Amino acid sequence: MTSFRMTEMTWLEYRDAIARGATLLVPVGATEQHGPHLPLSVDVILPTAVCEGVAEGGGYLVAPPLAYGYKSMPRSGGGQHFPGTTSLDAASLIAQVKDISREFVRHGVRNIAFIVGHTENLWHVSEGCDLAYRENAHLADGLRILNVGYWQFLPAETATAIFGTTQIDWDLEHAGIMETSMMLHLRPDLVHMERLVEHAPSRVPGYELWPHDIEAVPSDGVLNTATAATADKGKQFLDAYVSSLTQALKQAFDRT
Amino acid sequence: MTSFRMTEMTWLEYRDAIARGATLLVPVGATEQHGPHLPLSVDVILPTAVCEGVAEGGGYLVAPPLAYGYKSMPRSGGGQHFPGTTSLDAASLIAQVKDISREFVRHGVRNIAFIVGHTENLWHVSEGCDLAYRENAHLADGLRILNVGYWQFLPAETATAIFGTTQIDWDLEHAGIMETSMMLHLRPDLVHMERLVEHAPSRVPGYELWPHDIEAVPSDGVLNTATAATADKGKQFLDAYVSSLTQALKQAFDRT
Amino acid sequence: MTSFRMTEMTWLEYRDAIARGATLLVPVGATEQHGPHLPLSVDVILPTAVCEGVAEGGGYLVAPPLAYGYKSMPRSGGGQHFPGTTSLDAASLIAQVKDISREFVRHGVRNIAFIVGHTENLWHVSEGCDLAYRENAHLADGLRILNVGYWQFLPAETATAIFGTTQIDWDLEHAGIMETSMMLHLRPDLVHMERLVEHAPSRVPGYELWPHDIEAVPSDGVLNTATAATADKGKQFLDAYVSSLTQALKQAFDRT
Amino acid sequence: MTSFRMTEMTWLEYRDAIARGATLLVPVGATEQHGPHLPLSVDVILPTAVCEGVAEGGGYLVAPPLAYGYKSMPRSGGGQHFPGTTSLDAASLIAQVKDISREFVRHGVRNIAFIVGHTENLWHVSEGCDLAYRENAHLADGLRILNVGYWQFLPAETATAIFGTTQIDWDLEHAGIMETSMMLHLRPDLVHMERLVEHAPSRVPGYELWPHDIEAVPSDGVLNTATAATADKGKQFLDAYVSSLTQALKQAFDRT
Amino acid sequence: MTSFRMTEMTWLEYRDAIARGATLLVPVGATEQHGPHLPLSVDVILPTAVCEGVAEGGGYLVAPPLAYGYKSMPRSGGGQHFPGTTSLDAASLIAQVKDISREFVRHGVRNIAFIVGHTENLWHVSEGCDLAYRENAHLADGLRILNVGYWQFLPAETATAIFGTTQIDWDLEHAGIMETSMMLHLRPDLVHMERLVEHAPSRVPGYELWPHDIEAVPSDGVLNTATAATADKGKQFLDAYVSSLTQALKQAFDRT
Amino acid sequence: MTSFRMTEMTWLEYRDAIARGATLLVPVGATEQHGPHLPLSVDVILPTAVCEGVAEGGGYLVAPPLAYGYKSMPRSGGGQHFPGTTSLDAASLIAQVKDISREFVRHGVRNIAFIVGHTENLWHVSEGCDLAYRENAHLADGLRILNVGYWQFLPAETATAIFGTTQIDWDLEHAGIMETSMMLHLRPDLVHMERLVEHAPSRVPGYELWPHDIEAVPSDGVLNTATAATADKGKQFLDAYVSSLTQALKQAFDRT
Repeated sequence: MTSFRMTEMTWLEYRDAIARGATLLVPVGATEQHGPHLPLSVDVILPTAVCEGVAEGGGYLVAPPLAYGYKSMPRSGGGQHFPGTTSLDAASLIAQVKDISREFVRHGVRNIAFIVGHTENLWHVSEGCDLAYRENAHLADGLRILNVGYWQFLPAETATAIFGTTQIDWDLEHAGIMETSMMLHLRPDLVHMERLVEHAPSRVPGYELWPHDIEAVPSDGVLNTATAATADKGKQFLDAYVSSLTQALKQAFDRT
Repeated sequence: MTSFRMTEMTWLEYRDAIARGATLLVPVGATEQHGPHLPLSVDVILPTAVCEGVAEGGGYLVAPPLAYGYKSMPRSGGGQHFPGTTSLDAASLIAQVKDISREFVRHGVRNIAFIVGHTENLWHVSEGCDLAYRENAHLADGLRILNVGYWQFLPAETATAIFGTTQIDWDLEHAGIMETSMMLHLRPDLVHMERLVEHAPSRVPGYELWPHDIEAVPSDGVLNTATAATADKGKQFLDAYVSSLTQALKQAFDRT
Repeated sequence: MTSFRMTEMTWLEYRDAIARGATLLVPVGATEQHGPHLPLSVDVILPTAVCEGVAEGGGYLVAPPLAYGYKSMPRSGGGQHFPGTTSLDAASLIAQVKDISREFVRHGVRNIAFIVGHTENLWHVSEGCDLAYRENAHLADGLRILNVGYWQFLPAETATAIFGTTQIDWDLEHAGIMETSMMLHLRPDLVHMERLVEHAPSRVPGYELWPHDIEAVPSDGVLNTATAATADKGKQFLDAYVSSLTQALKQAFDRT
Repeated sequence: MTSFRMTEMTWLEYRDAIARGATLLVPVGATEQHGPHLPLSVDVILPTAVCEGVAEGGGYLVAPPLAYGYKSMPRSGGGQHFPGTTSLDAASLIAQVKDISREFVRHGVRNIAFIVGHTENLWHVSEGCDLAYRENAHLADGLRILNVGYWQFLPAETATAIFGTTQIDWDLEHAGIMETSMMLHLRPDLVHMERLVEHAPSRVPGYELWPHDIEAVPSDGVLNTATAATADKGKQFLDAYVSSLTQALKQAFDRT
Repeated sequence: MTSFRMTEMTWLEYRDAIARGATLLVPVGATEQHGPHLPLSVDVILPTAVCEGVAEGGGYLVAPPLAYGYKSMPRSGGGQHFPGTTSLDAASLIAQVKDISREFVRHGVRNIAFIVGHTENLWHVSEGCDLAYRENAHLADGLRILNVGYWQFLPAETATAIFGTTQIDWDLEHAGIMETSMMLHLRPDLVHMERLVEHAPSRVPGYELWPHDIEAVPSDGVLNTATAATADKGKQFLDAYVSSLTQALKQAFDRT
Repeated sequence: MTSFRMTEMTWLEYRDAIARGATLLVPVGATEQHGPHLPLSVDVILPTAVCEGVAEGGGYLVAPPLAYGYKSMPRSGGGQHFPGTTSLDAASLIAQVKDISREFVRHGVRNIAFIVGHTENLWHVSEGCDLAYRENAHLADGLRILNVGYWQFLPAETATAIFGTTQIDWDLEHAGIMETSMMLHLRPDLVHMERLVEHAPSRVPGYELWPHDIEAVPSDGVLNTATAATADKGKQFLDAYVSSLTQALKQAFDRT
């Protein structure tokens, strides 16, 4: 049986899948600090897992993830001052999204979805999508390009079950319960729960400031407590995201 | 008495104000549809009024606003398909922010604040700030550059007093109660309440899609009901923003 | 009665005006020193007034002005060393002109005129127009884009009446009789005639040099004497420009 | 024991490794057709394996690979007309190399090596390195940046042992004996030897032509026969590359 | 005796001349129609001859000319619709000027003068100079970069002697008496006086328009009558330019 | 008889030649050190001579050469540290190739060949060609754009006759026998054989390194011995290149 991962497919297998109308999912991650307990690749691993979960349902291919993302902001990622956080200028990320979209269109793909795992990517990926659509729409009848942060599709029931509320401050979830739980489920070998220290959540103000106010960010890079994370919650998150995104993608791409 | 508006100052007056350590406020707006009842310049008028309110307290100058902003997204501004919405590519907005910051630094300014009135500008203004800081920090000891969406600084008590909650979906406030009220307070001559039609709020899904799903956006461009807007509420909003932003700017720029 | 200012129109009013074939006028100014007696916004105020004068004749809309322009050159604006002069790199100005032209084309506009109030903008606005035309001409039958420095359309009789000659060194008119007179007519509250000091005109040589030869530029930024300026002359200038530009635009856009 | 893969390290582990003077290896690959028998990710898998081989010797970290590379040329990669080949414009690849180099420098890295697995990347990665060095050298005493195509370091004895000559036309090795053997050694699950068809090698002329002369390229994308590939040869290649590159990197970075 | 042409010097000769403080002259031309009687390279040949004339006086080197310039405008060059006119976008010309200036600075050059032979180049060369100065000034004490259109330095006495006035409409001199005369002096083998047809001068209006109003431009590309051109006048022009530019360059670069 | 050099043609002659289907040859050179015995313009002179040799056969025009090329690499040109070597960033070279190709297409040219005389240009010229083709192919039926390093077309018999082998390390031929011989044939006045010193060939390793390892490059910039160069060999080289390139261009452009 053929893989749904582009990395594992020959060009002939890929060609045939596209001819059958496959939608292309592109995980867009980051290389970014995620506290003392999680590896630098959390924002690549998680959206890739979500994409693969969706793809297992059939009709999708998963492209190689973009492993470097936009700059980390103090409020949502701790900021650029952490070693290991390795980020792109906006123009570079925009260009990549535009370029690979152009290529997929040339291959015959008509439905492209960028599945973002790093808050700071969202608007720049949108610009890449907009430019790609502007440049390619006249070459490809029915072209659709979508951009979504996967975490934004947490079903209310899962939110309530785990957080006790649907009002979640996603910025604080950087290296928090959600990401830690999903990593415990997916890559427990890369999680070091014992290194977690309890501390108050990040209190970064509602503006962005250069130079960053480093003192407002917890020095370990965890924006909220993550000690309540469990692999079981991680599975709940992943299943919920796969399910709700499958539905959202269906809605977006089946619309006529 | 000298104006705090750069547009009204001679270069000598400006020079002297900078020498006294004035902080520069730059309203960053948009030219964008705001329903059948509001003019295309709402996103310029409102942050400019907020900046001027802050500047009246002394120690601030207000630069000419950027009148064109980033592209309107369906979720937060209705989308790019409305006539009149006149937007810039990300690169163009980023470049402007970077260029004028470089100039202010050359003038001797050390504290620059971009006060954004259009959601879609936020991340691109941030990129402009980041590039400006990277390029200029070594030329200007103590340089600080700030980026903020003014609406994000609504005090909890004002939110509760007007909306009955602090959980506000700001995306829906495009051409809604907040913007309409402030316009009724500031420029009643440009508001046409009688053209407002009651309809359900926008139900744009949580992803961005190209081409935009136009049917998900109310056809008049009002994302939420605005009929409850009043000039009095507008004054409350404005006063609250001026007060809370004054405090936030103080915190950001007085930090040592 | 509906305004001809985009800033004051709703998107529906704008849409209807475009549908009736309105030509779009875009004032392109600068934030630049204009001597001890004039504000930093002279190059925005004057072309905007000219545009509005033309628009009062019907069939035109006036877009929000570009408030930041290309770098000031010693010969025509005193140079970049004056505090307050806040300029864009060429690429940034070109990009803005290109972007907003693309948007106007999408709205259905077919005649776009950039009315420049700052000498240094001219060639970069032309590049923006050229790129906009190249990119959009195939999308918009009959598209025409125009770029003009308003001062270049001073009728011979007005020139003779005021200057006693038609051979005017426009470079020296920076903050000179023409601009000061028009400001006295339009915004006397912003003019400080008493601060003007008589001195010899600028003697900047016919080359551009980096670093600027600051000593060749009058230290107050006035390139020629302006003491003969009067509000009455200002009205003559404005009326003459409105009249001659109305005719020129007619010629350019009515050509078949 | 801590991993040498950035993707598996926490930011604290990464920080400490950099503090100990680790050299950073960045695999630069491509997503490109590699015949009917190899997956699209060959050019990522192979340089990553070489980097990891080098890193096992200690003193090196391996960054996340760049998974998308420059456009495939007919002579060395078959060309851009194959579905699945997903390439970047030169500017996008250059920008990425420059951006992540800047970040590594900020982290304190002083020795950065781009290990390229796709011929067409080489010159554009060089431009990225040159720009990164120009921009960062004054910020980082002793900074060194290196760019190399790993295949160029095949020791003469390995070349002779496997090819019977040291005069190898590397362009023809696209999806040929070398790449196929290494894949058989590293990822036999992704190799389909049974799909290989014997045919004459590619006869693309010594110029580049747009549109590509598709008929000059074997229609299956294999530029030379690969049927002689074996896992054992793959191990020989890999071991030889790791050994010779370890020596070359030592020479480049230990030079004083 | 060593040449003053970079193209004819070895790197050692060039190095030594720079060490002696030579000023670098860079002719900036165009490949542009110049009527039925002149070749496409007029705008390269003329500024190169002026540069060489200056350099013969000693202390100058002449760099290879930029043979492609900015787009031809109807008013000053006939426009872009003529076959043979081969122009660059502004960004490309700006980049070239910036790049080679950076290189000259690295070589140790401290005085660089761009001698322009094509009106449309002027402002874009200025932007290149400005960016080069901004980027390099801190690397090169005393760096000076100059930009001049050589024709702007016609001494009053030569103007009067040949034109009978000092009020010359330089735009109309495209392929006119001045350029034709200089070509007759320098390269008579490339001039075809017999192909000249008398016609009225160009009447292009004072605005720029896209698409160009082709009918306003003489169909042969000669903007003014050139039949009065003679080789003798050409020599007068050349001698005058060499003399006045030598003086201007001395003034610009000897200033302390 | 009309010239085949664009620089010597009027626009009418050029127009007519294009109408007859002429192919455009563009020499792409560099300004780069070539040892103590050769001038900085070798890489312009040689490809121009090859182009002119081809053009003498009829059906071709020769455009003005690009006189500045991409940065010199230690392995193939000695490196950027030599005074006189005056290079462009990749983006600038790419942009020029793209721009002038666009212009040629507008003129009606359908076959464009970039004939490169400087190794380091090759990949960046390719990117320019690729972008030009992408942008223009739909505007110009049958458009073909070609990029070739002329030295790559040395016939085996000439190689054997002169070098005694067909296995030539072209990188070492920088300022070596081939280039010196051709210069002795074409411009003996610019060659100083007596300044040549025998030394071992360059031993630059197979990677690129920043900062360049200057000690690995012969300090005079000659990468291999050139004392065996003769004018007669130069003529053999030139004749061979003209003949083989004529044939290659015929193959590329006559293919249907």
